[in-house]
Amino acid sequence: MSETPRLLRALAGETLDRPPVWFMRQAGRSLPEYLELRTRAKDFISFCHNPEMAAEATLQPMRRFPMDAAIVFADILLIPGALGQEVWFEAGEGPRLGELPDIARMADAVEGSTAKLSAIGETLARVRAELEPERALIGFAGAPWTVATYMIEGRGSQREMARTFAYEQPEKLDALLQVLVDSTARYLVMQAKSGAQALQIFESWAEGLAEDVFERIVIRPHRAIVEQVRAAGVTAPFIGFPRGAGALVENYAKAVPVQGVGLDTQASAAMGQRIQAGGKTIQGALDNLLLRAGGPALDARVDALLEQWGGGPYIFNLGHGVIPDTPIANIARVVSRVTGKPVKAMAAE
Amino acid sequence: MSETPRLLRALAGETLDRPPVWFMRQAGRSLPEYLELRTRAKDFISFCHNPEMAAEATLQPMRRFPMDAAIVFADILLIPGALGQEVWFEAGEGPRLGELPDIARMADAVEGSTAKLSAIGETLARVRAELEPERALIGFAGAPWTVATYMIEGRGSQREMARTFAYEQPEKLDALLQVLVDSTARYLVMQAKSGAQALQIFESWAEGLAEDVFERIVIRPHRAIVEQVRAAGVTAPFIGFPRGAGALVENYAKAVPVQGVGLDTQASAAMGQRIQAGGKTIQGALDNLLLRAGGPALDARVDALLEQWGGGPYIFNLGHGVIPDTPIANIARVVSRVTGKPVKAMAAE
Repeated sequence: MSETPRLLRALAGETLDRPPVWFMRQAGRSLPEYLELRTRAKDFISFCHNPEMAAEATLQPMRRFPMDAAIVFADILLIPGALGQEVWFEAGEGPRLGELPDIARMADAVEGSTAKLSAIGETLARVRAELEPERALIGFAGAPWTVATYMIEGRGSQREMARTFAYEQPEKLDALLQVLVDSTARYLVMQAKSGAQALQIFESWAEGLAEDVFERIVIRPHRAIVEQVRAAGVTAPFIGFPRGAGALVENYAKAVPVQGVGLDTQASAAMGQRIQAGGKTIQGALDNLLLRAGGPALDARVDALLEQWGGGPYIFNLGHGVIPDTPIANIARVVSRVTGKPVKAMAAE
Repeated sequence: MSETPRLLRALAGETLDRPPVWFMRQAGRSLPEYLELRTRAKDFISFCHNPEMAAEATLQPMRRFPMDAAIVFADILLIPGALGQEVWFEAGEGPRLGELPDIARMADAVEGSTAKLSAIGETLARVRAELEPERALIGFAGAPWTVATYMIEGRGSQREMARTFAYEQPEKLDALLQVLVDSTARYLVMQAKSGAQALQIFESWAEGLAEDVFERIVIRPHRAIVEQVRAAGVTAPFIGFPRGAGALVENYAKAVPVQGVGLDTQASAAMGQRIQAGGKTIQGALDNLLLRAGGPALDARVDALLEQWGGGPYIFNLGHGVIPDTPIANIARVVSRVTGKPVKAMAAE
């Protein structure tokens, strides 16, 4: 038997006896042991920059469930912080960002930004040292457009301001995206060198973009990141996840040299199969609301996803992250159903 | 020359020398004459139920711009009101609804609901009498799922509550959707008999639904509405607009017997062409944020849409409604570009 982690085999294009499984946001607020751990840091950003705590948070779901991959515990807004924009979290409200710094000044900060994120490299090294060899470790970053929406709007929101910015100040947006491409590529290179075996780019806000805008602010920056990371000698496979892109996911799959394409909840079976036929591995797309709701409908949907996509290279996952109040028993049930491994005991609380 | 309105020729599958054009929300808050008119009614619901004022609002954009179609001024939440749920609008915040009535009681109210919406029929008759014969008049209703989300959540929101309801109380949701199918079909029959020559179903919140859920709560109810309207002898063409459905729009186009399929801002050129090749007329999908932003990028995008879809049956429109603070000059510019008719003088303020 190959000792290559199942996730990496799937990303190499193999159709396996059963797909690898992991869940976006598998670590974090859905686990009581995380909530306990989290109380030990003064704020969320400090938590992410503490390798001991972040490594522990990364490993917590790996102890409960036979997930095939861990994903480093971090946040997509660490990059703006490393570029000099203030970032903090309001309890119960999500992220807040200070004024958008001058872009030329941020461009000057790119070179030094990776050093400010060295704690994340240390987290990866700690996790890789503890994790079994057959389980893969994923590094990640937010995609430039998604991170830019937060940087421009100062918070998570309807993104209307950022989408208008894309039309009204295209040169300024392009300059901001370039800063983010350059800093993100360096950050991902550092993650790979620290132990990340696959790299996911989270484009959480690809929704509502016209096709030409999507090409300019999603496809082009993603391609540039992959190319820069490859130019640095890193061969780890990429998973690109343009959440909310609808039919434009197919444009993405054709144009961006990623190995895996993340599909969100509303992906159609046919679209996923076309992407597989085009030579990419797909990942997704169980509804996180159904995971929370549970019941026979959940089992049926898991089976349907395995049936519709399991005949090609496929990574079982959600279409979005785990919702904090999701019952752990539901997560255990799905992972058990996909892997064929009993998880009940591991999930006992 | 045929006197059949250009919109109806496009919906009959004709590829015309230039597509018909109209804009969702072309009437209403983007026009100063509407804002003036609106002050004469005590609230928005009363305004919609006043045929004189609603007909005037419907006709206002037709006087300014050479739109090929008028759409009756009304609201998708008139149906819940006719079924016995309280509906009101908070200034600047949008709709609010009272507690969801007992579904069996609403089912009993279906038969009488159309009579409570007779003012909308009178609005249509007034508009049809004034509108030039070559310009079509569109009637519309909100789709059952979209209306149900407001009825369940009590307001416009993230729809997470309604999507969870779909999983946790499927029988109750199906019963609610059936009440909405039955009342909406009757309402649309009445609209057609009052002068509406085409009927649009607005599914404003099709986003984020898994494929099997989309089949159950979008495709099935839309199909049932069209079938009920046809059974009543109405032959007016339908435009179905599943906004936010992403790649699932193709499932919709194949399964629902509408003549036209509305595409939202993020539709891909290729997907639209596949739907045209499948025998449907498509409508959309200019970004309403670009319409508001204006400039050379707007002209270029209009040309690109005409180029990519104008070779098949196509209705030029937005991917979403006109935003209230959109400059009238931008609307005039686009309509002039599509129709080849000078609009500058008409748009002078």
